[in-house]
Amino acid sequence: MGSFVPDPEPNEDLAERFAHVRDATTRLAAPLSPEDCTPQSMPDASPVKWHLAHTTWFFETFVLERAVSDYAPVVPHYREMFNSYYNTVGDQFHRPERGLVTRPGLEEVHDYRRCVDGRIHDLLAQGVGVDLAAVVELGLHHEQQHQELILTDVKHLLAKNPLHPVYRERPPEPAAPLAPIAWSRHEGGLQSIGHEGPGFHFDNEGPRHQMHLVPFALASRPVTVGEFEAFIDDGGYRRADLWLADGWATVQERGWQAPGYWREAEGERHAFTLGGLRPLRPDEPVTHVSFYEADAYARWAGHRLPSEAEWETLAADQPVKGNFQENERFHPAPLQSGEQSDGPAQLYGDTWEWTSSAYAPYPGFRPPEGALGEYNGKFMANQMVLRGGSCATPNNHVRATYRNFFYPDARWQFSGIRLARDV
Amino acid sequence: MGSFVPDPEPNEDLAERFAHVRDATTRLAAPLSPEDCTPQSMPDASPVKWHLAHTTWFFETFVLERAVSDYAPVVPHYREMFNSYYNTVGDQFHRPERGLVTRPGLEEVHDYRRCVDGRIHDLLAQGVGVDLAAVVELGLHHEQQHQELILTDVKHLLAKNPLHPVYRERPPEPAAPLAPIAWSRHEGGLQSIGHEGPGFHFDNEGPRHQMHLVPFALASRPVTVGEFEAFIDDGGYRRADLWLADGWATVQERGWQAPGYWREAEGERHAFTLGGLRPLRPDEPVTHVSFYEADAYARWAGHRLPSEAEWETLAADQPVKGNFQENERFHPAPLQSGEQSDGPAQLYGDTWEWTSSAYAPYPGFRPPEGALGEYNGKFMANQMVLRGGSCATPNNHVRATYRNFFYPDARWQFSGIRLARDV
Amino acid sequence: MGSFVPDPEPNEDLAERFAHVRDATTRLAAPLSPEDCTPQSMPDASPVKWHLAHTTWFFETFVLERAVSDYAPVVPHYREMFNSYYNTVGDQFHRPERGLVTRPGLEEVHDYRRCVDGRIHDLLAQGVGVDLAAVVELGLHHEQQHQELILTDVKHLLAKNPLHPVYRERPPEPAAPLAPIAWSRHEGGLQSIGHEGPGFHFDNEGPRHQMHLVPFALASRPVTVGEFEAFIDDGGYRRADLWLADGWATVQERGWQAPGYWREAEGERHAFTLGGLRPLRPDEPVTHVSFYEADAYARWAGHRLPSEAEWETLAADQPVKGNFQENERFHPAPLQSGEQSDGPAQLYGDTWEWTSSAYAPYPGFRPPEGALGEYNGKFMANQMVLRGGSCATPNNHVRATYRNFFYPDARWQFSGIRLARDV
Amino acid sequence: MGSFVPDPEPNEDLAERFAHVRDATTRLAAPLSPEDCTPQSMPDASPVKWHLAHTTWFFETFVLERAVSDYAPVVPHYREMFNSYYNTVGDQFHRPERGLVTRPGLEEVHDYRRCVDGRIHDLLAQGVGVDLAAVVELGLHHEQQHQELILTDVKHLLAKNPLHPVYRERPPEPAAPLAPIAWSRHEGGLQSIGHEGPGFHFDNEGPRHQMHLVPFALASRPVTVGEFEAFIDDGGYRRADLWLADGWATVQERGWQAPGYWREAEGERHAFTLGGLRPLRPDEPVTHVSFYEADAYARWAGHRLPSEAEWETLAADQPVKGNFQENERFHPAPLQSGEQSDGPAQLYGDTWEWTSSAYAPYPGFRPPEGALGEYNGKFMANQMVLRGGSCATPNNHVRATYRNFFYPDARWQFSGIRLARDV
Repeated sequence: MGSFVPDPEPNEDLAERFAHVRDATTRLAAPLSPEDCTPQSMPDASPVKWHLAHTTWFFETFVLERAVSDYAPVVPHYREMFNSYYNTVGDQFHRPERGLVTRPGLEEVHDYRRCVDGRIHDLLAQGVGVDLAAVVELGLHHEQQHQELILTDVKHLLAKNPLHPVYRERPPEPAAPLAPIAWSRHEGGLQSIGHEGPGFHFDNEGPRHQMHLVPFALASRPVTVGEFEAFIDDGGYRRADLWLADGWATVQERGWQAPGYWREAEGERHAFTLGGLRPLRPDEPVTHVSFYEADAYARWAGHRLPSEAEWETLAADQPVKGNFQENERFHPAPLQSGEQSDGPAQLYGDTWEWTSSAYAPYPGFRPPEGALGEYNGKFMANQMVLRGGSCATPNNHVRATYRNFFYPDARWQFSGIRLARDV
Repeated sequence: MGSFVPDPEPNEDLAERFAHVRDATTRLAAPLSPEDCTPQSMPDASPVKWHLAHTTWFFETFVLERAVSDYAPVVPHYREMFNSYYNTVGDQFHRPERGLVTRPGLEEVHDYRRCVDGRIHDLLAQGVGVDLAAVVELGLHHEQQHQELILTDVKHLLAKNPLHPVYRERPPEPAAPLAPIAWSRHEGGLQSIGHEGPGFHFDNEGPRHQMHLVPFALASRPVTVGEFEAFIDDGGYRRADLWLADGWATVQERGWQAPGYWREAEGERHAFTLGGLRPLRPDEPVTHVSFYEADAYARWAGHRLPSEAEWETLAADQPVKGNFQENERFHPAPLQSGEQSDGPAQLYGDTWEWTSSAYAPYPGFRPPEGALGEYNGKFMANQMVLRGGSCATPNNHVRATYRNFFYPDARWQFSGIRLARDV
Repeated sequence: MGSFVPDPEPNEDLAERFAHVRDATTRLAAPLSPEDCTPQSMPDASPVKWHLAHTTWFFETFVLERAVSDYAPVVPHYREMFNSYYNTVGDQFHRPERGLVTRPGLEEVHDYRRCVDGRIHDLLAQGVGVDLAAVVELGLHHEQQHQELILTDVKHLLAKNPLHPVYRERPPEPAAPLAPIAWSRHEGGLQSIGHEGPGFHFDNEGPRHQMHLVPFALASRPVTVGEFEAFIDDGGYRRADLWLADGWATVQERGWQAPGYWREAEGERHAFTLGGLRPLRPDEPVTHVSFYEADAYARWAGHRLPSEAEWETLAADQPVKGNFQENERFHPAPLQSGEQSDGPAQLYGDTWEWTSSAYAPYPGFRPPEGALGEYNGKFMANQMVLRGGSCATPNNHVRATYRNFFYPDARWQFSGIRLARDV
Repeated sequence: MGSFVPDPEPNEDLAERFAHVRDATTRLAAPLSPEDCTPQSMPDASPVKWHLAHTTWFFETFVLERAVSDYAPVVPHYREMFNSYYNTVGDQFHRPERGLVTRPGLEEVHDYRRCVDGRIHDLLAQGVGVDLAAVVELGLHHEQQHQELILTDVKHLLAKNPLHPVYRERPPEPAAPLAPIAWSRHEGGLQSIGHEGPGFHFDNEGPRHQMHLVPFALASRPVTVGEFEAFIDDGGYRRADLWLADGWATVQERGWQAPGYWREAEGERHAFTLGGLRPLRPDEPVTHVSFYEADAYARWAGHRLPSEAEWETLAADQPVKGNFQENERFHPAPLQSGEQSDGPAQLYGDTWEWTSSAYAPYPGFRPPEGALGEYNGKFMANQMVLRGGSCATPNNHVRATYRNFFYPDARWQFSGIRLARDV
């Protein structure tokens, strides 16, 4: 997170955004019962109740504890129970057992949220210094990340239910005629990437630095479900030559034959979505693929994935708009005719795009001192960078320099494919 | 379950007992929130919500489906979702993921119970034949088994919570002066064990048959917490020579150093109970020990565990009374002076007693035809017999011939130790 | 091993038998290369080199160390390296890594054998007391058990090799016309089983005691390959109703579809044998089945497995003869016409026969004091008794009271099926 | 391997080098018994016998099969048995069971080597075209990689033996006074890395391309044992803040407290080496550390690891000399005074040096067509680049552009640490 915000923003504005982001989280949980908010469907996914509590813990631990002398915690046990991974703060409740903590119940967690919100509100009304305002700001962006996880984690949970529960009904959309992929070329050379200047950014987005690129082209839109079906129908999941060795081992071990959440029903391919089980839409961007599948698809198609520098270089010129969380669609949408602009379309929103770049520190990167230094840096191994945001990401959360990262076998995020090639 | 009830009982009586047993189950779940009733803390334990639904499924599947022509199920999906292990009935939902089924919610499951209860009530009001009455009877005893599991499974879950939740407050009891163990001798010889004659019994309790016993003696009461502490303090968990080879391997693998639910708090040994975390009571019968620990303790004490035939031979003369579920103590109680009778005390209730007998069919045993034949027989391998019932067992559920069985490494049941010896 | 041998045998005789048994072991290893004798193909199986060393360690540790004051071990490290499971003797080398000990090499292990043999020979020439003679005797029976394991363990190893190595060529045998199973009936009642009187026996064979049996019948011969094929062809491995619950789980988990070592080759069922890969012989006794498969087969056939008391009661009248290790056939043989006697045939040799009895102490059993008390007693949980010996057992090693035992999922021993039924 | 060798070398020269490299392999196996050459101590390590056969398989499959029409394989089964991972060639024997293949024995494998060597010799005597010569060349470099693995894999195996076997005796070396680390600075800017021009290189070393570097400095020598002990003594293995999250999880899971092969003996730290168990030498470069440990050490020291571009930029000016396989020391050596040159010392030989670079394709990289395309490209995920070679690497095998790669948790290679920093 670095020196997040060089200039303090007026606290009224911050208070307003605080209320806005916190409310959005509450609204995301509203369609869910106490039962829905309790279990943990795999170690990587957390209960909704935990997300609601942990984001609150963040503000209590990193803002209230620092700002208020002799701070009396709302519930002392929460300090350990809702710590995710901050070793500097102390011990953490055993992650794979988060779903076994039935008390506090959902309503008590909402009480906890309201209580901490009230205290933060009072604090911001009094006014806080630059440093603390920066931590509040960080907390809001942190909360937005957990908003996305609430959606992806509860999707993973509901998908286990044979009743195919619907999180939110979604009206059908008309099919749009889809043009073949076109290519946006770039001449390469010495380019600068990474964040610089005012505006919030995470520590891992800087320092801004130069990269030398060879000439390349980026596809005009993400790979669609229909295109990915062609890969499957061509034996894509059965041909070792298309896969990285680790990817092939994963395919064998887990028996993958299609993207995540795809299943056969009544002799037809369906996908489980937050709107329930639905027949595939060939014109939608494919999502819930791992890096391995994205890489194999690209190889099959005769192309490759973009590096994060290539992606950012072309995305820097594009406005941040698209199908985001605010749409409440919670699923990638087909590219509508007319949306196609000069550059690549759908770079933002819909589905994150795997890059070929391993998640690593930029030259000169140093994590901040203290517990918040654990935010990003310690994960810089074994993960791959994704760019652009998804249908579960809040609109104002992403930007051209934003670096998301997951392990190459992860599929429960909204993660898709954009092709690149040398020119 | 065999040929369960040779003579039909009047259905009014059955209807009354049906209402009584079903209500008892509901009352056991009353102190628990929807969150408490949802997760599964290990594959062997099931969510309370699942127990509530599965016991209802039993009546719907084995009674209503048989009794009512063109029966329309309450919810068709439940047939698979709440089937435990009856392959004959069809597929079963994947057992280790029972805690991920958040819908139906707790209230819907109660609706399901009420709906099936109403239909059964109507059926019994009309009157049913001997065969169906026997299945209802079986269903009630089945439900009582799940009542016990509700208590042991939710205890296992709540024990994961750092807040040490209390299921039910329990007033302290006065310490009772405890006499040393005395021995009830029996001359052995040809004895008959197993159930015969009227009265409900499970299929595995018959046929009644003869066994030849050598002279033996049974301890006057179960091993207490204080006695088991002496075993621990003598290095019991560190001395390989006291253990069966498989037991020793289990001790190493799981790092056992004390019975289940024991933990250190403020420098003292405590036990997590359904009444919360409490200091040990040395005069209570020890419980939550595995067969391996019971066997090792007996070896250390210079004695042995009784066989099930020995236990039954002495228990047959004793009245079935003791500290049962109805007491709502939900924990073994110290032997009260004055309770000591002629024969061994506390044979029934408080804590199940491991025997040295592997769970196997009695000579001439044949499981009934059809799905209900899966009730007991298919588990007759790798498990050990326990006798006598516990503080979580309904009083009218056990009898001298009753055979409970668990794997030798299981500790989450209320399972304790009674010593025996040759004479 | 109990109070092994009440009367001392003349030591010359013992010395002769010592030489004979030890030589037999060496001869079993003769067809194997240093490479063959080194690896461990699964944790339960040991390298041949280890068997050669461990049996020698037994004599060094339990005889020479006791007999010779200030005994200087051949190689001090061997005390730990070749201890199998005697906690009383000290630490043991980590069992699953026995195959990684490449030094001492095979020739050095033979040197170790020769050295210890020389010292034992000298000792016996001087004469030893009753107690020590009993330990030597025990060591010889122990060595015979490891002779059988040499054969089963190396079979398991060689079976991993795609070249299908031949341990020993075996001439084909003529097919014998096979009569259907007949039944030997017994009226049951109070019977005595277990060893008593002179002659070597293991501790677990006593004390002799009374058992009450219901009338029963034992099949005239073991189940054959052809009969077992009918079970397979009838869907035996796909019908849950035929299996114990634990057996069914094992079938699913391991994908069993046939007995151990069976495989398809050129469209036909073959078996890998110590004579190489060979087409099935339908008239041979089926072998390499687990207890679960034996139990499922019996259920399918409408019968059951015998208890060990039933088996012993009928076997006590039969002479100990059959197809044993000395035949060097190393595979079960078809029943030859003319072999059929009055009672059941092939009770001894060919293939061990699973009983329905869990391995447990006989009433009044007490293991001997000291390290040798670990020989049998500590394994009395979770295993099932087998009776009768196999084609890999030395002829003079078994008797009617002999109790072999393995886990119910074990298949790498020569273990087969004899049916029983109530009459 | 790409377009390995643009200009054909004279085949006599190739034949001579072929003989030389193949002989070197045989010599490495000479101190080992058939037993030593058989087992596999972990899935990642292979038996020496397997290495001897697989390198031969490479020449048979990729040279003889292509060069000779109607080629008759030495042993047809070997095609599958000794294929490592070439899916294009066909199925492969199950990797974790390589140690269970006892036949062919060591002598037969040597026969196989001799036979193929003879045929290759004849082929080269006749002369081969450019393409085939390139494959032979590749096979020799492939064989040199397996020479290194023979040493690291047999070290891993021998380390399991409580007797601490010695692969090769090694005379003690005098301690050398060791200067503190100095720093070689570089001004950064646009640099070219990767192989170009004549001379053998692997496909992953190209294409040569430009990278933009910020100014940096490289340490004058590798981190020593003594320096790493200071890290340990400062609690390095117990401080979460020094580790990447995945590294910390690995430390916990495997209980790491020191580099690989270190152990306590007689109250002192020792290391198991190919010369046996020896007290630590503080002046030797530390080796057998994982990437995680290298990264944590660097963080503790206030520095960082170099990127592969930084390493190559400085190494390009240095001669390839140092402590290599030919020294037969088989362990890193202390830096001798006088060895210190202008630039960083010990860049080559002694111990591989972990870089901060994930192993990924260079811009424009394309693997060759066919089976040999599987050589490098398919491993370009989840691994980290190491540079410089080790005491087990043949001298003429490495160069400045050479990229070695292993998973970040691997420790059985000779892998050490060189520090870098920003300036």
